[in-house]
Amino acid sequence: MAKMKAAIFVEKGRIVLDEKPIPEVGPLDALLRITTTTICGTDVHILRGEYPVAKGLTIGHEPVGVIEKLGSQVTGFSEGQRVIAGAITPSGHSYACLCGCASQDGPGTRHGFRATGGWKFGNIIDGCQAEYVLVPDAMVNLSPIPDNLSDEQVLMCPDIMSTGFSGAERGGVQIGDTVAVFALGPIGLCAAAGARLMGATTVIGVDTVAARLHVATRLGVTHAVDFKAGNVVDQIMALTDGRGVDVAIEALGTQATFESALRVLRPGGVLSSLGVYSSDLRIPVDAFAAGLGDYRIVTTLCPGGKERMRRLMNVVASGRVDLKPLVTHHFKLDDIEAAYDLFAHQRDGVMKVAITP
Amino acid sequence: MAKMKAAIFVEKGRIVLDEKPIPEVGPLDALLRITTTTICGTDVHILRGEYPVAKGLTIGHEPVGVIEKLGSQVTGFSEGQRVIAGAITPSGHSYACLCGCASQDGPGTRHGFRATGGWKFGNIIDGCQAEYVLVPDAMVNLSPIPDNLSDEQVLMCPDIMSTGFSGAERGGVQIGDTVAVFALGPIGLCAAAGARLMGATTVIGVDTVAARLHVATRLGVTHAVDFKAGNVVDQIMALTDGRGVDVAIEALGTQATFESALRVLRPGGVLSSLGVYSSDLRIPVDAFAAGLGDYRIVTTLCPGGKERMRRLMNVVASGRVDLKPLVTHHFKLDDIEAAYDLFAHQRDGVMKVAITP
Amino acid sequence: MAKMKAAIFVEKGRIVLDEKPIPEVGPLDALLRITTTTICGTDVHILRGEYPVAKGLTIGHEPVGVIEKLGSQVTGFSEGQRVIAGAITPSGHSYACLCGCASQDGPGTRHGFRATGGWKFGNIIDGCQAEYVLVPDAMVNLSPIPDNLSDEQVLMCPDIMSTGFSGAERGGVQIGDTVAVFALGPIGLCAAAGARLMGATTVIGVDTVAARLHVATRLGVTHAVDFKAGNVVDQIMALTDGRGVDVAIEALGTQATFESALRVLRPGGVLSSLGVYSSDLRIPVDAFAAGLGDYRIVTTLCPGGKERMRRLMNVVASGRVDLKPLVTHHFKLDDIEAAYDLFAHQRDGVMKVAITP
Amino acid sequence: MAKMKAAIFVEKGRIVLDEKPIPEVGPLDALLRITTTTICGTDVHILRGEYPVAKGLTIGHEPVGVIEKLGSQVTGFSEGQRVIAGAITPSGHSYACLCGCASQDGPGTRHGFRATGGWKFGNIIDGCQAEYVLVPDAMVNLSPIPDNLSDEQVLMCPDIMSTGFSGAERGGVQIGDTVAVFALGPIGLCAAAGARLMGATTVIGVDTVAARLHVATRLGVTHAVDFKAGNVVDQIMALTDGRGVDVAIEALGTQATFESALRVLRPGGVLSSLGVYSSDLRIPVDAFAAGLGDYRIVTTLCPGGKERMRRLMNVVASGRVDLKPLVTHHFKLDDIEAAYDLFAHQRDGVMKVAITP
Repeated sequence: MAKMKAAIFVEKGRIVLDEKPIPEVGPLDALLRITTTTICGTDVHILRGEYPVAKGLTIGHEPVGVIEKLGSQVTGFSEGQRVIAGAITPSGHSYACLCGCASQDGPGTRHGFRATGGWKFGNIIDGCQAEYVLVPDAMVNLSPIPDNLSDEQVLMCPDIMSTGFSGAERGGVQIGDTVAVFALGPIGLCAAAGARLMGATTVIGVDTVAARLHVATRLGVTHAVDFKAGNVVDQIMALTDGRGVDVAIEALGTQATFESALRVLRPGGVLSSLGVYSSDLRIPVDAFAAGLGDYRIVTTLCPGGKERMRRLMNVVASGRVDLKPLVTHHFKLDDIEAAYDLFAHQRDGVMKVAITP
Repeated sequence: MAKMKAAIFVEKGRIVLDEKPIPEVGPLDALLRITTTTICGTDVHILRGEYPVAKGLTIGHEPVGVIEKLGSQVTGFSEGQRVIAGAITPSGHSYACLCGCASQDGPGTRHGFRATGGWKFGNIIDGCQAEYVLVPDAMVNLSPIPDNLSDEQVLMCPDIMSTGFSGAERGGVQIGDTVAVFALGPIGLCAAAGARLMGATTVIGVDTVAARLHVATRLGVTHAVDFKAGNVVDQIMALTDGRGVDVAIEALGTQATFESALRVLRPGGVLSSLGVYSSDLRIPVDAFAAGLGDYRIVTTLCPGGKERMRRLMNVVASGRVDLKPLVTHHFKLDDIEAAYDLFAHQRDGVMKVAITP
Repeated sequence: MAKMKAAIFVEKGRIVLDEKPIPEVGPLDALLRITTTTICGTDVHILRGEYPVAKGLTIGHEPVGVIEKLGSQVTGFSEGQRVIAGAITPSGHSYACLCGCASQDGPGTRHGFRATGGWKFGNIIDGCQAEYVLVPDAMVNLSPIPDNLSDEQVLMCPDIMSTGFSGAERGGVQIGDTVAVFALGPIGLCAAAGARLMGATTVIGVDTVAARLHVATRLGVTHAVDFKAGNVVDQIMALTDGRGVDVAIEALGTQATFESALRVLRPGGVLSSLGVYSSDLRIPVDAFAAGLGDYRIVTTLCPGGKERMRRLMNVVASGRVDLKPLVTHHFKLDDIEAAYDLFAHQRDGVMKVAITP
Repeated sequence: MAKMKAAIFVEKGRIVLDEKPIPEVGPLDALLRITTTTICGTDVHILRGEYPVAKGLTIGHEPVGVIEKLGSQVTGFSEGQRVIAGAITPSGHSYACLCGCASQDGPGTRHGFRATGGWKFGNIIDGCQAEYVLVPDAMVNLSPIPDNLSDEQVLMCPDIMSTGFSGAERGGVQIGDTVAVFALGPIGLCAAAGARLMGATTVIGVDTVAARLHVATRLGVTHAVDFKAGNVVDQIMALTDGRGVDVAIEALGTQATFESALRVLRPGGVLSSLGVYSSDLRIPVDAFAAGLGDYRIVTTLCPGGKERMRRLMNVVASGRVDLKPLVTHHFKLDDIEAAYDLFAHQRDGVMKVAITP
């Protein structure tokens, strides 16, 4: 049985490059040879033991590659084709998929279908920080890359761009809206870009890292707010003449950003939450208008599937959103442990790394 | 200046019947002679000092009456007409009204328009537990009562029915949905009726008062759950074969009901909150799937305006929802202090009282 | 190779019962042994040559049966299980499925995916007026029948009920709406039932057959209009005090019903069209307010898939809609030619026939 | 009584500048002193007698001006303030307004409220091609102009921009959509800009005038199609690899553009119609997939009201859409007859004219 290299979760604090068998291809699967992948903030949570996965699992959920082998029942694709797959790989046939909630696809321990059940790569099946990855339900999940786009141009589509844009989409951003985005990491930057794509005319970005605030202005942020420069709620209220924002997007996963997002909403506004929270949240009764403010709080798990990927690559191809500046560092797969070290410690101004086998 | 009787907030613990001048009618107003009104749970919060209003204010926001006098600029109505007005009286011309959020109408202290600004009667202007009430923006808010409907039949339209139904509407109930309603007071009962009206096929009602659980089955509840008979989440999960509910409606305003509502949602489900909360809320991180469950939390302040009232009276006239069983007690306005006493202490199985001047 | 009986399209005017091989089961398929099926108006169009299908094709798209054999890749079901499948059988993996338009699934001659591509049974693959039928993409399309429901109780779910309800759903019926349904055949009756299920308080049914108008009142129609008793638009305008209807559902497929549906709309109303048209339609410029009336015209092909079927069977199980009165006649599969004859000529007050092998 | 100059409809073929009394200001009105206005294609229909208005009516529905006098009941504005008002001036208090269909506001001859009833200026009340105009329901309709925007920058907001954008909005354009716009007059150009603002990545513009196709590329059109260069449906199908478009926007009002828009839709696509039709439309049964294509046809009358205008001016202020290139010619009000002559004959490459008293 042929072997491949893969970044494997060994125990809390240790993700190491090791060898594994190249997976067998089932009738509905596709085997991809990875050409580029990356590390996500969620992978760092896994590394730190904050998000539990099985020991021995290959990590990574952002694959760019070439179809090495197709399952016997897979039609519509051909071996050798360049493709991506979303971080979330819905089956297409679950009840969740059929009621418009494909990211919650899959078997699970709660409610008949497990929450977050659509997230499989590097979570419940082997992921793509490896030489090869097996894509389940390939007809749902493989998405051909247009010839004129490079690997790095589409590297953000599987997760960062899909998640970030969904913050704006589920928030229901409309033409002429004022939107605030809390935390300008890669997800927040994509949320800002998504808000702009949907017609927001004022996009307020909140962070404190100068480099991020700077990149943000190229991705749609019209007003940068440094949360260390004063009370962030007051700053945003001043910027909006006391009106508040139509949509506030939370892109970090902390009580502080969640609460500030709620406090800057206009009555009837939407808090669109993207962050992964690691502890309970508190909703202050005054910020919530005692439940009478017509507020909405919406959460979204990254949308996947080939139609979603097709649309995101359309955005890249159109030149409307250029995320290449987010790729600040490059590593070989052989050096992925060093890449984790850099990324987990957020050294050297790293935004995203490109990993190539 | 002619005088009238009115139930007036004097201080914490005291709402008394006293005399006040009959109000002057401005160009856009209408003066109603009240024929029937009622007491709301919110009025009890005011009585107890839990919700602050100005001393001297007339309480009450559920008016049924006859047009006594129309303002000089009001067209489309005639004096002597039987009408209701919603508890919430939007102006029709605020930014909030024009962006589809009329209940948040009005001037205010936050965001240019104050949260809950559309609630005026018995909150920021004199209410309708009186012989007369002045209706602002009468062309927006007066709604003629069909001849064949009695005062008591439409008494729930201004608030209870509008609020309760909105729990189902904002929750997005669809044909074939499973819905849980937490607390079967008048609002919760109307939420259940609304869920049924929108096509829910399983409506789980949660309470512990036998009389309420009994009435509930006449208003659309298909499965009654007594929260004292065991863990409420477990009971609902068992009823739904572990699937959870599509929409959970919170109709009380407590941490316990809010949290249970969240825990019984299927991934991608909606928590539709109607309760008035008096302290901070906590969102347990596990119940929230760390922010990745595609859950939505929506809140709603009672929709008002004449079109809303017209539709609700259509529902009553169609015979599809009969709320008369909710009117358990009758009082003269002269005896309103006794009515408050009964209602505030929930004695004698009271659901709603009808007050007639 | 074992044989089965099947109703086969031979040529215009001739659908005959003949023998065919029982189909082979592919990895994603399921073979159903049909226990009950029916004839649809569309099948009569096929019989008459008005809708072209391949010679030799088995007709029928409303299967109720038992799983005889599952494909090798099908999980989540078991042989011997009682199931239905929708008339429309989406694949779950097409672009159409993944953009929320599953009924337009499938390969095709236009636009990458063919219009009406999701309709396969008795259209592009063998249908279910036979002893056995092969269900494609079984994991998407098989839906278990609750034990307490009979074949006849769920016989309308695959097409009639799904199509009829979708007329109300796509029309966006809301609580308190006034809805008109044009033509009260099985589809129109289900549209009326769907409008009522979604909260319509006035449901106007238009037909001229007394028996249908009578059944209609049991399925939600509140006002029956006989189009031979006077100008139908005038009658509906009189019933609505000149206001018009919020949603008009066309359930026949003719210029007359389409045009009347448009003419009774209130400004901003929705014409929800379910009929299968056999010639060009004309939109009178006056009825269309020259394009300035904020009108919408929506069309819908029957939604399919197991989640849809689950919900429809929930409706049946809840007792809220009882369609058994629609099954007016029973035939053995051996007598299906007689059943076609009766049904095509609409003799003896036939609404729907139940066919049992 | 003071007099003012106004462009008055005298009879078919004649709109002339004449004198009229400056209007009296009612309690809810505002009198604007016009500083800039323009001529709309609809005004040319009126000139030609194709759209009937009363003799003696002042024409024009695109006002930019200064508040000269406020009615006694109008609050929230001050005399001397620079404002615009939408072409459509809803009352805020009609049933149409309160059910989310404000453009269909107003008394009328059909359905209780007349179709197109919200269009008052230059239709049922005196318009703004004059020195002064009376704005009804001023609190709903006056919208202050940000200081840094010139009259010409906001001149398109009242009608062209609001109508054009609504074509994209009602079409439900999403991120990554392919949109086709039929006819690139001012409305079509704004529809293209709106589609781009909402996230369309391919915007196909159809026209044959080279200048328009050229301007179009600056407003969001990515692919220009000259309908004289070959069959327009074939051209668009080729551009979309046979897939068709998600949304087709009709911006002319003819059978040819309407029909082509329908024929290029993908199954499940939306035809968003903005044109004013002067004769009946035909829906070819094949293009309509016999009613089974899940197509939608939506129509929109220009949205008005101060919140809409505020948002559109936000778009202008943000620099995202620059419509100044559309203002190709300038005239004094005294020369408005010459302006009509130029505009009606579409001479000299005219797109829009600016008229200043």
